[in-house]
Amino acid sequence: MRAVVMRNNKLVVDNVPVPIPGPGEVLVKTLACGICGTDLHALRFAETLVGGARCSGGLFAIDPNRGIVMGHEFCAEVVDYGPDTRKRFKAGTRVCSIPVLTRSAGDESIGYSSENPGGFGEMMRLTESNLLEVPNELSPEVAALTEPMAVGYHAVAKARLERRDVSLVIGCGPVGLSIIAALKLKGAAPIVAADLSPRRRELAVEMGADIAIDPKEKSPYETFRTGGSARRGVPGMIDKIMFHAFRTGGYARRSAVIFECVGVPGMIDEIMFHAPRHTKIVVAGLCMERDNLYPLSGIHKELNLHFVLGYTRDEFAETLRNIRKGKLRVPPLITGKVGVEGVAKAFEELGSPGHHAKILVEPWRN
Amino acid sequence: MRAVVMRNNKLVVDNVPVPIPGPGEVLVKTLACGICGTDLHALRFAETLVGGARCSGGLFAIDPNRGIVMGHEFCAEVVDYGPDTRKRFKAGTRVCSIPVLTRSAGDESIGYSSENPGGFGEMMRLTESNLLEVPNELSPEVAALTEPMAVGYHAVAKARLERRDVSLVIGCGPVGLSIIAALKLKGAAPIVAADLSPRRRELAVEMGADIAIDPKEKSPYETFRTGGSARRGVPGMIDKIMFHAFRTGGYARRSAVIFECVGVPGMIDEIMFHAPRHTKIVVAGLCMERDNLYPLSGIHKELNLHFVLGYTRDEFAETLRNIRKGKLRVPPLITGKVGVEGVAKAFEELGSPGHHAKILVEPWRN
Repeated sequence: MRAVVMRNNKLVVDNVPVPIPGPGEVLVKTLACGICGTDLHALRFAETLVGGARCSGGLFAIDPNRGIVMGHEFCAEVVDYGPDTRKRFKAGTRVCSIPVLTRSAGDESIGYSSENPGGFGEMMRLTESNLLEVPNELSPEVAALTEPMAVGYHAVAKARLERRDVSLVIGCGPVGLSIIAALKLKGAAPIVAADLSPRRRELAVEMGADIAIDPKEKSPYETFRTGGSARRGVPGMIDKIMFHAFRTGGYARRSAVIFECVGVPGMIDEIMFHAPRHTKIVVAGLCMERDNLYPLSGIHKELNLHFVLGYTRDEFAETLRNIRKGKLRVPPLITGKVGVEGVAKAFEELGSPGHHAKILVEPWRN
Repeated sequence: MRAVVMRNNKLVVDNVPVPIPGPGEVLVKTLACGICGTDLHALRFAETLVGGARCSGGLFAIDPNRGIVMGHEFCAEVVDYGPDTRKRFKAGTRVCSIPVLTRSAGDESIGYSSENPGGFGEMMRLTESNLLEVPNELSPEVAALTEPMAVGYHAVAKARLERRDVSLVIGCGPVGLSIIAALKLKGAAPIVAADLSPRRRELAVEMGADIAIDPKEKSPYETFRTGGSARRGVPGMIDKIMFHAFRTGGYARRSAVIFECVGVPGMIDEIMFHAPRHTKIVVAGLCMERDNLYPLSGIHKELNLHFVLGYTRDEFAETLRNIRKGKLRVPPLITGKVGVEGVAKAFEELGSPGHHAKILVEPWRN
């Protein structure tokens, strides 16, 4: 089958064997698969990813010579069943799944393993018991975004928001945008977003942010007073709350939750420096490098740093339900579609954050 | 009055003015005052302390030319009252207080402010409404330790321990020991302690640890299986739990809380590297320097880093009550007493952790 293979830190279109579904597994045809920031990281920091992944208990198995077919945000169509399956869905049924093969010897990644090709190839094998049927009213493109939307849903769940928490989302790439949507779903208010890219600030507001700030123009932590580029809500009131909530180091009248969604060295320290007392900082950005920080700012302000990753099975299923019900807005996220030949270029374009949020790969396309 | 003054990064015995109690304030005679690790830090990193303190909202006001009289872990005796006081306690009454002057213009530190001498001098001024009477059955030495014991009490409260959490205390200086006592009070089990010093490991067990491990002999994170220097409890059972709880990166059968009580660069990263999934790490050590860590280990294991400092008023009062009731063991902590002339030497001795836990200053002594 045709697939985009990452090998020797390059993306190449190649023919690879169609995966054979084992016991309890199903063969599916990929309909749409999102390109994730982690995929970009994987290309750039392949060694670090492998090293870091090893700490997590062998979920990932990457053979550099064979390479991997990435792609873990997918919607697919049932083609055939392996042995010992219940054949719950007939061929042609559209399904989503967490990107994990659930095997008796332990979980295996789909998309970050040389054994289990992901959605940047024409076919995948999935575990039957992990399949969720995609309702007819959802397009494959929208259903494919269940995975990244579940990431935001999980991050917001981990933040254990309280009623009066002010939410600040630093970085409006797909992770930040997905967090904004989940915050909106939870009724969080106000939701403040910050990103250097005007396009991403627009998307942030479309996904539910009350204010989207350009950090070059004003500090997202301190200058709420003067307005930001608020488009809806009641700017005057929001500004007043912001000022009190985010006064650096002061006793905030409202508690704050800050979501780190940039994932480059220095961001955690910057947020710790500016955060008001007792802030919960949810680290959702995937920083692959060594980082520096000053514990003293954490100590003086009794900050809480919560690192998050992924989602639970229930959160994944709940996210698909919320998308179907229209409670989680997905369409603004999709800014492009490519076939396998277009993936390498799409990776390049996603590397500079100006333009795109989510590009979908449709491996069946020419 | 005679006092130990920190000036130009040195401790000198000098005569300084007796503080004048303002409205709502009381003049007290210091009976006993503990030397805190933060005092050692303050001597070594005076500039960093001032810089960091500035971030916390002006509680501290340090004039390098005048210097400061440190000492914030004290028991004192009421001498005289300022204006606008209720005179709740007659002269001679023994009292404790949080080391804060509560003033209409804002809180001011006692012990880290050039305006408000702390307990390394003969007299202090305190806020009347902050005074807690020390019960007759408690000696001033034991009552003076209310403050450091409240630090441990607070750290454990912030850890939001759950019933099956395994507690690991890294570093058994006064902060670690106070945390061990508070864990014991909460019924936490097992409590595992780790310190390089044999004396401190002994103290850890006296304060309530079930096992005290020498990290040079075996990793406190991984080698629980083979025993440690358990002195009581049921070592076999504890070892089994430990092994499951602290398997690096594995799915722990019991959740873990790790208390960082060393406060030097690299400790947070070390703990993050070894911690099992979903561990709560309570950072109680006061690292005054820039630190390094790999966010990836936090992300892969969804760790939670909670930085803590101090305690609430209620926790302070509750700690004094618990000491009185014998629920918090204090006496093993006290390993020495000095007059003002002995303070500089006591600081030196406390700098090498082999010998002492808490040295008390009795400024009235010759």
